[in-house]
Amino acid sequence: MEAKAFPMNGGDGAYSYTKNSQFQRASLNAAKDMIKEAIAENFDITCLNSDTIRMADLGCSAGPNTFIAMQNVLEAIVDSNQSSKEFQVFFSDHVSNDFNTLFTSLPPDRHYFAAGVPGSFHGRLFPKSSLHLVHSSSALHWLSEVPEELLDKSSVSWNKGRIHYTSASEQVATAYATQFAKDMDIFFSSRADEIAAGGMMILIMPALPDEVHHSKLPVGVPIPFLEQSLTEMVKAGSITEAQVDAFNLPVYAPTPTEMTRLVERNGCFKIERIELIDPRAKFDGPLDITTLIMHYRAGLEGILTKHFGSEIIDELFERTMNKLSSEISSQDEASDRKGSHLFLVLKRK
Amino acid sequence: MEAKAFPMNGGDGAYSYTKNSQFQRASLNAAKDMIKEAIAENFDITCLNSDTIRMADLGCSAGPNTFIAMQNVLEAIVDSNQSSKEFQVFFSDHVSNDFNTLFTSLPPDRHYFAAGVPGSFHGRLFPKSSLHLVHSSSALHWLSEVPEELLDKSSVSWNKGRIHYTSASEQVATAYATQFAKDMDIFFSSRADEIAAGGMMILIMPALPDEVHHSKLPVGVPIPFLEQSLTEMVKAGSITEAQVDAFNLPVYAPTPTEMTRLVERNGCFKIERIELIDPRAKFDGPLDITTLIMHYRAGLEGILTKHFGSEIIDELFERTMNKLSSEISSQDEASDRKGSHLFLVLKRK
Repeated sequence: MEAKAFPMNGGDGAYSYTKNSQFQRASLNAAKDMIKEAIAENFDITCLNSDTIRMADLGCSAGPNTFIAMQNVLEAIVDSNQSSKEFQVFFSDHVSNDFNTLFTSLPPDRHYFAAGVPGSFHGRLFPKSSLHLVHSSSALHWLSEVPEELLDKSSVSWNKGRIHYTSASEQVATAYATQFAKDMDIFFSSRADEIAAGGMMILIMPALPDEVHHSKLPVGVPIPFLEQSLTEMVKAGSITEAQVDAFNLPVYAPTPTEMTRLVERNGCFKIERIELIDPRAKFDGPLDITTLIMHYRAGLEGILTKHFGSEIIDELFERTMNKLSSEISSQDEASDRKGSHLFLVLKRK
Repeated sequence: MEAKAFPMNGGDGAYSYTKNSQFQRASLNAAKDMIKEAIAENFDITCLNSDTIRMADLGCSAGPNTFIAMQNVLEAIVDSNQSSKEFQVFFSDHVSNDFNTLFTSLPPDRHYFAAGVPGSFHGRLFPKSSLHLVHSSSALHWLSEVPEELLDKSSVSWNKGRIHYTSASEQVATAYATQFAKDMDIFFSSRADEIAAGGMMILIMPALPDEVHHSKLPVGVPIPFLEQSLTEMVKAGSITEAQVDAFNLPVYAPTPTEMTRLVERNGCFKIERIELIDPRAKFDGPLDITTLIMHYRAGLEGILTKHFGSEIIDELFERTMNKLSSEISSQDEASDRKGSHLFLVLKRK
């Protein structure tokens, strides 16, 4: 079964992911030198037994970050290996991703053959041992589905009045963690089938630092404000309480220790590197509330519209922005000092 | 440089290629048994030295014909070879093709990994020796560009008042033939790079029977009526004479002898089979004028709109349909008795 798909906003309009993904790009830039190192240390193309190096970006969205990411990876491979091999790059995302925009914005001066692969990374996407390098950035935090018990009134994990685990109980957080663990096991096993011996995987995703409580999730800062806005809108009558109770964001950010355990439990990959990074340090642009909210909107409008309808979106993000504007500075300080993203290098055993 | 792209009408609306491509599907059905035979006789996967069979459909459009075609090919391979190999199918067309529609309509029960490849087949699309079977149906007649001299007032090939070579002079037909020969040489050389030893190519395309004059081109029946309609519209003032003079359809249908010579001159492929087929015999639906014109519209609306603007399209096709209705029966009889399409099986030398 195809996992639930909530694509980033397509096209290249004001609210598009294409125009609102500088944060995600910052995490790529933060990782660029680390990718270079990881490839120099772990990726020997002479061992690959293939004339073509085949790479995939999973959760590529509609661009342009995916082009920058794959260019970084390709340059790192070319720099650390003397070779005349050809490259084929597979850009993969859900079937409902805007591949038309992706394809029309492919860099004209690229030194690789490009292909798009529609489908969920929570399952097989490629033939056996056909890939040499898999990259995924800002994508793995999407769960294949919302844990069922969050919607079950009789469960201790019923997530009434909330839309995520950030400001919820331990039981709710555990339900999310359990779903993420299941998803990752399928993800690692699928990739293990697809990645040839000697191949590697570079993963970048939102994370929670070890020893930090889930209510302080760095990338979750706007979520309580979104929840407050929804509660206000219930009171104002523009949505119902039941609609809010029935909605949960299917995204999860693991701790480094948690992710280490999941990789080891799966057993197909060896961890070459795992560490927290802070993309904010590499963000080149005004890091203001408007930018932050536009990013959230580009990423979440699809799933919010599907549940609540498109007519509430403007109001929801305006309310949330107003709240954030008056309260962000203190929140912001407390959040991602230890790093907000995980950088992970795995090698196929 | 990307060759000029004039995609079939996208989406799945009334004028879409998706809803108006039964003729093209008929040519696939006509070829189905021949494909089966060709694969049984010429395609030995045990010689391929690959765990994955990689196939491509070039000029796939937005579906659904491409799915039927690749399913036919895949079944033929599985039937004639005992094997547990996996299949990867690349659906390729111009960057401006509607890949979003293609991807969302992929058959859910497919037994292959699907990928989309944006770009022109008049050039490289895939890594060296990475493909085992290339298929192309109803696509190779598109030229990479209109021959320049058709637009040159000082040339004997100036195609004044006409939009194609069907009803034009020998010089105009020669200009088209020369462009087609250039395009095919690049096409064959590109595919020769991409197809592994032992790999094959199955091509189906509109053709002119040997010894038949180009004015009797089977697939060209509506063209003189389109030209007459445009001339009338010039007189009515809705378009200008200069606009008509500046427009030529970049499509060409070779004779079997001509195509044989082009394959041999290129030298990279051995002809296993070449023959004329008549898809009309396999057409399962009302073969009426409306259907014919809807097909023409789905295929040509893009290029006509780009040149003349969208506001003339309805009138142009209405006029053409009225003319065809009163004159088609005799034309139709005279046209494709010898077969209107070429079926070609080539093996990589």
